[in-house]
Amino acid sequence: MVEAKIRPFDDLIAAYQEYSARYDFIKDPVHLYEPVGYIMKQGGKKIRPLALLMVQNTFNGNINSGFPVALALEMFHNFTLMHDDIMDNAETRRGQPTVFHKYGINAAILSGDVMLVEVTQLINKCSRENQTGQILELFLQTAKEVCEGQRFDMDFEQRETVSLSEYLEMIRLKTSVLLAASLKMGALLSKSNPTLCETLYQLGINLGLGFQIHDDWLDFYGDSEQTGKKIGGDIIQGKKSILILTALQDLDPVNQHKLLNDYKLKLNDEDKLAKIGQWFEQLDIKNKVSKRYLSYQEKCEAIIQQMECESWQKNKLREFVTLILDRKY
Amino acid sequence: MVEAKIRPFDDLIAAYQEYSARYDFIKDPVHLYEPVGYIMKQGGKKIRPLALLMVQNTFNGNINSGFPVALALEMFHNFTLMHDDIMDNAETRRGQPTVFHKYGINAAILSGDVMLVEVTQLINKCSRENQTGQILELFLQTAKEVCEGQRFDMDFEQRETVSLSEYLEMIRLKTSVLLAASLKMGALLSKSNPTLCETLYQLGINLGLGFQIHDDWLDFYGDSEQTGKKIGGDIIQGKKSILILTALQDLDPVNQHKLLNDYKLKLNDEDKLAKIGQWFEQLDIKNKVSKRYLSYQEKCEAIIQQMECESWQKNKLREFVTLILDRKY
Repeated sequence: MVEAKIRPFDDLIAAYQEYSARYDFIKDPVHLYEPVGYIMKQGGKKIRPLALLMVQNTFNGNINSGFPVALALEMFHNFTLMHDDIMDNAETRRGQPTVFHKYGINAAILSGDVMLVEVTQLINKCSRENQTGQILELFLQTAKEVCEGQRFDMDFEQRETVSLSEYLEMIRLKTSVLLAASLKMGALLSKSNPTLCETLYQLGINLGLGFQIHDDWLDFYGDSEQTGKKIGGDIIQGKKSILILTALQDLDPVNQHKLLNDYKLKLNDEDKLAKIGQWFEQLDIKNKVSKRYLSYQEKCEAIIQQMECESWQKNKLREFVTLILDRKY
Repeated sequence: MVEAKIRPFDDLIAAYQEYSARYDFIKDPVHLYEPVGYIMKQGGKKIRPLALLMVQNTFNGNINSGFPVALALEMFHNFTLMHDDIMDNAETRRGQPTVFHKYGINAAILSGDVMLVEVTQLINKCSRENQTGQILELFLQTAKEVCEGQRFDMDFEQRETVSLSEYLEMIRLKTSVLLAASLKMGALLSKSNPTLCETLYQLGINLGLGFQIHDDWLDFYGDSEQTGKKIGGDIIQGKKSILILTALQDLDPVNQHKLLNDYKLKLNDEDKLAKIGQWFEQLDIKNKVSKRYLSYQEKCEAIIQQMECESWQKNKLREFVTLILDRKY
């Protein structure tokens, strides 16, 4: 394979968008499939399609077989959003009404269901065409884990305390496994050796954990002009993010109790953020969580360094890691 | 194969129940899987497992490979109930609280989702073990059609009129295809020839249509002591069953309008049933729908007669048809 065939990320995303635009989401009965078309046309960062196509492009060069799988992964991601938005009672997503809000709960449930089936059909077709039943098995295992992650997340909201390791396991399931599966599927489609497939999976797990921890960090320490979100949304909502969990871990039981009480207080937003911000400052949470997030970046780098492949291939992976982790928004 | 291995239906259901009782529905996170175990232990007639095992037992003798597929079909059926009960706002099913009512909407959505994935995993495993990718493809196609049927059913509730052919297409999708797939999967697992597989599928379609039409008929003309249900529930709720659709088909536009108005009237139950019962009597609906339902029984018999198999095998299929169609409840 010659390096010349390697395409910039923007180019891969554009090729995916072109493929996706030709796909016929809306069929009869139109009330069933219209919400599918609606959510699929809403945008989003296309991280999972890019992960798959980038690996295929880097380790094989030919991405044609990857488009339907990339589409299926993006569709699966959107299926989870469609159902999660009902559970979270979310009114908007990507600046537009959620499916649940626009079409009603029943439509969001049923259109999500049919989406999950159509995703599985797409993956099964590609698995058969590429003679890799592994892709289907990996997809089903991943889909189950994503449901498990969502359940843990819902359970944690009801619980007084959650340990850091429980939190990390939750985000591994809810966020990391789908990114890891996207990278691994790219490798499976490229007929890469099992070691490379597994290494890319592990890269995806660590990248996903780093991504989510960074996301939690940005919520309070990010620049609201860059994130486009109100600072401290998680704290105002009383969500169990890595910031509060790290703080709790570093306190004795008496102070844990005090912080938890403050975290639950019904104050106006400004006072609440000031109060919790004080705790965080005392406990050096900004740096501690930043270090933790950087440790995942380092794990990704260590995984890439040990891989047995060309240095330009490693650089492509590094470029992807940077894209996912170095965002300011 | 010797006929001696052929087992009575009760025996097949008991063997299925024994297999199902050993299956581990409840895993961690327990809040995700507990509702799955709850609905799977609630009972039900086990029509789909019986359909599959009966075909396997009749055309092959060995039902061991059928149990996991039978379980997956029953689990899929229960997944549809779990989500449909949210959409119908149903409080009880099989005399017990629905999952939605007992565990909440969010649990019913998410546990249904994971159920659908687990069903697909089971079917995929069996498809691979039996080297019949057709089973998985048939399952996915069926799952999609069942969602489409549910959507048509929901759409019809909002519409003023529905034609008989639209109604039949809706119940084909919502009810028949899963029964047809169950019979066909039994034949696929028995390595039957493609003609037999397709014939059993067609038998299931007609049997399912007959079953559903009979169900609608029993709602008003059944014996409430035997059905255990209040007479005329569909009419009281204003549901578009085959009774009202047949009546409308036989009227001129002016009288259609009158009947539709009566059907929408908010009267006490007794008066409503008396009013609509009068229309039905004038139009001879009891006999007309009865004839239609019998015509599907005849179609089933015609399909069985034309099959190329032993007469004792045909009799087994007849026994199954009778079991499904001749119920008084």
